[in-house]
Amino acid sequence: MKQSEILTGMIPVAPTIFDDDGELDLEGQGRTTDYLIDAGVDAICILANYSEQFSLDDTERDAVVERTLSQTAGRLPVMVTTSHFSARIARDRVLRAQRAGAGLVMMMPPFFGATMGVDDDMVIEYFQRVMDGIELDLMIQDAPLSPTALSTTLLARLAQTVPQVRYAKIEVPHTADKLRTIAQITGPTLPGLFDGEEGVTLLHDLQAGAIGSMASSSVPRELRRVVRDHLAGDEDAARSEWERLLPLIQYENRQCGLQAAKILLKEGGIVSSDSVRLPLRDVGQAHRSALIAIAKRAGAFVLSWS
Amino acid sequence: MKQSEILTGMIPVAPTIFDDDGELDLEGQGRTTDYLIDAGVDAICILANYSEQFSLDDTERDAVVERTLSQTAGRLPVMVTTSHFSARIARDRVLRAQRAGAGLVMMMPPFFGATMGVDDDMVIEYFQRVMDGIELDLMIQDAPLSPTALSTTLLARLAQTVPQVRYAKIEVPHTADKLRTIAQITGPTLPGLFDGEEGVTLLHDLQAGAIGSMASSSVPRELRRVVRDHLAGDEDAARSEWERLLPLIQYENRQCGLQAAKILLKEGGIVSSDSVRLPLRDVGQAHRSALIAIAKRAGAFVLSWS
Repeated sequence: MKQSEILTGMIPVAPTIFDDDGELDLEGQGRTTDYLIDAGVDAICILANYSEQFSLDDTERDAVVERTLSQTAGRLPVMVTTSHFSARIARDRVLRAQRAGAGLVMMMPPFFGATMGVDDDMVIEYFQRVMDGIELDLMIQDAPLSPTALSTTLLARLAQTVPQVRYAKIEVPHTADKLRTIAQITGPTLPGLFDGEEGVTLLHDLQAGAIGSMASSSVPRELRRVVRDHLAGDEDAARSEWERLLPLIQYENRQCGLQAAKILLKEGGIVSSDSVRLPLRDVGQAHRSALIAIAKRAGAFVLSWS
Repeated sequence: MKQSEILTGMIPVAPTIFDDDGELDLEGQGRTTDYLIDAGVDAICILANYSEQFSLDDTERDAVVERTLSQTAGRLPVMVTTSHFSARIARDRVLRAQRAGAGLVMMMPPFFGATMGVDDDMVIEYFQRVMDGIELDLMIQDAPLSPTALSTTLLARLAQTVPQVRYAKIEVPHTADKLRTIAQITGPTLPGLFDGEEGVTLLHDLQAGAIGSMASSSVPRELRRVVRDHLAGDEDAARSEWERLLPLIQYENRQCGLQAAKILLKEGGIVSSDSVRLPLRDVGQAHRSALIAIAKRAGAFVLSWS
């Protein structure tokens, strides 16, 4: 496989855009893509959990991939999430993403429900099977949703034994501690350390060794500046900007969840609906108003782009 | 909706048959269907967790539904599992099953991973949304896999508020206790109480109020006899037959898991491969030999049908 340059900076998760009836809104998906590119992000991630991938069928997944890649038209890399319990189907999704022109792929380890996890040896075998001969880099996603645990030792083994594993997105309790340990034990074999979770621990994750963030699409332009300032050695600027954003991303993280980005995209005139699919609940008007007020005070780019 | 007669007896979960390369084997699926019908079962369930539904893509799900229904050709009801996190997609699956000729449907409550469950009110709203206007009865599946808990109170509420909910498959620790409570508080509003889990607690579940079992396809003919004897009031015969089967279903339940039925189907010449899809592991030759030996001693119908 080719050893492509490691991405740094901001790889926002793009929400999957629905209309008020819950149908895919591919026009809105396209405008969201344009907005993210204009925000200056380094790549765009689609079909992640914050994209409600668990609420999509296979045909809809294909449609989101197709639209995002055609809209992007090579302007930046698109990261396609290809997680599936079955190695066979996950591999098929990776192959389709590769053929469609994805820049890289992201996956969680295999799991089903609260209790069906797999052991470390099977995690290795699974990813070897899925990625064999694939030319794309793989971001391993480490989140508490999965009953299949990813220890730092296992992440290091994965990076050593599956050459495509060059990124890890860590979003667990004490992400900074885990990032620091991974950085120590993996060094250059796992260079692409990212956090997630709306960026609520970004400053400390960067200090622990992260080189970028996979927060949501709410303030990707602003969070990218935090990463860039940090990587340029300007820690005061990074801290100042991150602390300025904290009330907004904290409200997103603790009060709204994944609908926050959709609410801001709608308020910014980029999409026409901020709906999520049942059984996810609408956060309600009070949270909507509070979030928008905080975003206005922060001068969020998402509100002024369109 | 029509109030169809409540099924009793044995509704085995049909495994999804793969060849040694992991491809769907629809011929084997068809032979498995014929075997189950000749075993005298009361309905056939497809796409359940024991059917490795979590390892199938949407196209494969459709193929299994189509093949099972065409093979069955109305000889008995087919129960199609239609679980999906999204109410919209679950409803689409139910509608497709109804159009294809399914006799009833089964679903778990919505969940994703270890941590994304929904509360009781949303479980009600979810199933109302999914089943609105549907003419098929619904079996609610209550299994520890789901982080969305189904209390006996919630199951009673579901049966009261969603008219299609007329069956529940309980397979949790202390299934008999839960069945007894449900029977007491729901009475005729939730008549279709079944257990699952290979039938390893069937005798006690029947005594607690179950009217049937959704065990695997290993010994459906024999387990049906246990149910029928119990329902006919011949408790000695029910106990005697169940205790005779216990070494086999206990070995299946504790040593083999879902591959057991495939191993016996292959040994019986009904299918050509007993493979499961990675990351599930093959149980290995020692378990295979032991299971077959126990099944031979029990004179299991699955070994003599073909």
